[in-house]
Amino acid sequence: MDMQVSFLDRLFESGLLIETGVEGLYGRSGRFEDVIAAFERLIDRYGAADGAEAIRFPPGMNRAFFEKSGYMKSFPQLAGTVHSFCGCELDHVSLLKCMDEGNDWTAEQKATDIVLTPAACYPLYPTVAKRGNLPEAGGLYDLQSYCFRHEPSNDPARQQLFRMREYVRMGTQADVTEFRQTWMDRGVKMMAEVELPVEIDVANDPFFGRAGKMLANNQRDQNLKFELLIPITSVAKPTACMSFNYHQDAFGTKWGLNLADGAVAHTACVGFGLERIALALFHHHGLDTEAWPASVRAALWG
Amino acid sequence: MDMQVSFLDRLFESGLLIETGVEGLYGRSGRFEDVIAAFERLIDRYGAADGAEAIRFPPGMNRAFFEKSGYMKSFPQLAGTVHSFCGCELDHVSLLKCMDEGNDWTAEQKATDIVLTPAACYPLYPTVAKRGNLPEAGGLYDLQSYCFRHEPSNDPARQQLFRMREYVRMGTQADVTEFRQTWMDRGVKMMAEVELPVEIDVANDPFFGRAGKMLANNQRDQNLKFELLIPITSVAKPTACMSFNYHQDAFGTKWGLNLADGAVAHTACVGFGLERIALALFHHHGLDTEAWPASVRAALWG
Repeated sequence: MDMQVSFLDRLFESGLLIETGVEGLYGRSGRFEDVIAAFERLIDRYGAADGAEAIRFPPGMNRAFFEKSGYMKSFPQLAGTVHSFCGCELDHVSLLKCMDEGNDWTAEQKATDIVLTPAACYPLYPTVAKRGNLPEAGGLYDLQSYCFRHEPSNDPARQQLFRMREYVRMGTQADVTEFRQTWMDRGVKMMAEVELPVEIDVANDPFFGRAGKMLANNQRDQNLKFELLIPITSVAKPTACMSFNYHQDAFGTKWGLNLADGAVAHTACVGFGLERIALALFHHHGLDTEAWPASVRAALWG
Repeated sequence: MDMQVSFLDRLFESGLLIETGVEGLYGRSGRFEDVIAAFERLIDRYGAADGAEAIRFPPGMNRAFFEKSGYMKSFPQLAGTVHSFCGCELDHVSLLKCMDEGNDWTAEQKATDIVLTPAACYPLYPTVAKRGNLPEAGGLYDLQSYCFRHEPSNDPARQQLFRMREYVRMGTQADVTEFRQTWMDRGVKMMAEVELPVEIDVANDPFFGRAGKMLANNQRDQNLKFELLIPITSVAKPTACMSFNYHQDAFGTKWGLNLADGAVAHTACVGFGLERIALALFHHHGLDTEAWPASVRAALWG
């Protein structure tokens, strides 16, 4: 924890991250953003030849799709629903009175049709399903959005609002497992270009509760999730900066994603935690980007 | 309304916007994003010489600052508070049962410390106030974020989640009114470069309820808000694509923003509605960016 706090303090002092008074919610300086943009261009270079379809969803998604996704079964503690005031003028008077008296005014807020996006690819599956069967070659999509996870923390690598870049592949089992392996290899190469030490390991999602332990074990036993880990605030527990997920036909079945021949599609996704990668760069190469090794600067800014 | 629906349908058919099943919540194609990025570079060019400090806040802000801002007094219907599940495993069982039975499960969600950002500059004022008195020359900041407003609509120019680029000036009354005038002139020039027809008019914010009418009239009488309007889905009611706001010393007083000599700072902000500007470009020049006038393409893509 000390290493986390001390790194966070140095990020605040340097101005790279900006305190907002809420743990895990930070502003970013222009320089921090330049690093994210540069790393995204590096991702673009690695992915360019694949011809992915770029789609950018906003940081919120349709609540009906979110409900159908099963997220509340697996990660209820992380989700963020968006609520609004839907009352009349008299209700507004009561609301302001409640706020003036320092009481909890939020209980009267009503859920809207929007939930904060928990991972960049969540809005994609129902979108693609609506188009009908996939093309002959399957589908490949390039996504990025701010994502929300309610897990306040003073580890700068665990933010409540952070950006995830993703590629999603839909196709046969062979298509999507090859895609996942390709990006594991590319991930290792990219991080070598920017001189970050990595290891790749089997992993599991943070499923909720005791029942979740079984899901986690099952996920590990089947090698469904791998992570690319880089030490940031702890050497003993390096931080997942990329993840490589094979969903088998679970999303295909749930959303009705079918191949050109009508068979259920398999899917896989590869995610980049952009803030975490930027933080790994700052941790390993220092807070002053001008002083980073020339080779790293060349990889990022050509 | 017909013009709004027909333009929205054409945007869906062309793939520039992507339906999500919620009015005012859309995905964007890569081409749509290219237009936004190009227009932001045009803004950068106009603003570059001023040396603004770039800060990027995420799409949510500290609820305590939001409450202090007075937003719930003026625009309660537009705000979006973020709520999460904070229960134990037994509560989780009840939650899933509630969802399975198709009942409203959202009432048990508890407000987090985060509210969706209603305008890009809201998180800035408390951030700058924390730094102490402003420098001799005052302050100038460059912001951009996704913003939320709960106003479902089938007008593509009225989205619930959209991006706002802003410059904010803090200084003497002369500093900030000059800043506002400079950007009104620049706004007109920029839109002329991309060949969009504009008018500038005095305006008011959409204050809630009957009491809000007075606030709106007062704002208009004092010329505190101007808008740059471009016809998109209606010629009779052109759409506000930029706004130019003089806050007098209201924010300076509220947040404790002081000049170098200790006097209360005046503030002004200039906002670009990035989706609206992109939509104006698509409406006036067509849905195929390759077919836009060479002069417009040169202004955007050099």
